[in-house]
Amino acid sequence: MAAIFTQTDRTTPMRSKEKIDYTKAPAYQVLDEALFCDVAFVGRDGAPRVLPTFPVRVGNTVYFHGSTGSSLGLGAAGDGLPVCLTATIVDGLVFSKSWFHHSMNYRSVVVHGEARVVTDEDERWNAMRALIERMSLGRSERSREPSAKELSAVAIMVLSLEEVSVKARSGPPVEEPDDEPITHFNNGVAEVKTVITGRL
Amino acid sequence: MAAIFTQTDRTTPMRSKEKIDYTKAPAYQVLDEALFCDVAFVGRDGAPRVLPTFPVRVGNTVYFHGSTGSSLGLGAAGDGLPVCLTATIVDGLVFSKSWFHHSMNYRSVVVHGEARVVTDEDERWNAMRALIERMSLGRSERSREPSAKELSAVAIMVLSLEEVSVKARSGPPVEEPDDEPITHFNNGVAEVKTVITGRL
Repeated sequence: MAAIFTQTDRTTPMRSKEKIDYTKAPAYQVLDEALFCDVAFVGRDGAPRVLPTFPVRVGNTVYFHGSTGSSLGLGAAGDGLPVCLTATIVDGLVFSKSWFHHSMNYRSVVVHGEARVVTDEDERWNAMRALIERMSLGRSERSREPSAKELSAVAIMVLSLEEVSVKARSGPPVEEPDDEPITHFNNGVAEVKTVITGRL
Repeated sequence: MAAIFTQTDRTTPMRSKEKIDYTKAPAYQVLDEALFCDVAFVGRDGAPRVLPTFPVRVGNTVYFHGSTGSSLGLGAAGDGLPVCLTATIVDGLVFSKSWFHHSMNYRSVVVHGEARVVTDEDERWNAMRALIERMSLGRSERSREPSAKELSAVAIMVLSLEEVSVKARSGPPVEEPDDEPITHFNNGVAEVKTVITGRL
């Protein structure tokens, strides 16, 4: 049986429930494939904040980094900071015969939880290596390890993957029955791909 | 002189101040180019939420849509909802001779403000047309306009571009002077491109 995340109030959407998936494999895949994620938190003024960062998943946890002096790094020190992390991959633009059914094919993961700064030295080192390895396999051996001064400038944050959902759409456009016979409007999906050239 | 956004406390970072830009043109460009943005807000439980959505910029405002029954759509009805919207484009993976200076080339816009549901019928219609046109120029004429029923299912939200900043990195990797002579570690930038095929 597929491993699944336990559904909670926060991971139960008010609409489009049929697009939501709680199995772990697709959530892991989005986190492993996305080039960045966005981390939302509540600022000290009570207003929402969101910052992009480069994540890496190791088992059932996500690590991301920030400056030790950033609002995110400071907030996540100590007891941790409630965050909502999301990563999205756009797979296609969906063109329907009607404005209403224009859409996108995408896979989007949302993670709720408490981010905290990693203090264990081994865990920090392994997370940093995993971040470098995610950029290019074997790269941690093909570049210099951090100095003590460099280490002290980076906050590595960890978020456990417990409260997680994936929302996704795939396939051709939806059409209303009345629109199907219309031939002067065409429909289809334009594929979206991310191409990386010259990875070192 | 270039048009600029007024800098505020929230758009002044605690670190990496040299990477921040308040001119309007690059902010507009990221919003026009990104295939999705993330909208963060504070849920009724006080915890952060973030949702991806497809935005369109018209002049100095951003429109995005959601279901009228979604938490975002409900929250933005009436007086409006404090949000933080971000859109990011990754331009390259930056490989340095040291772990520490591995980075990304990117352009990321952050917008703070109050999102509200558009109630003016003309503004709604124009925003919906702009969303379709952004998917493909002329597409609003090559597909059926929405019915009254379809119109009632969509919440169009508007966010004014007032409190805005762009954070960006470009160019080759940074190297420490001591690392420059090392020849057994190479460095460079792997270009990242988004390719869309078969736009209708």
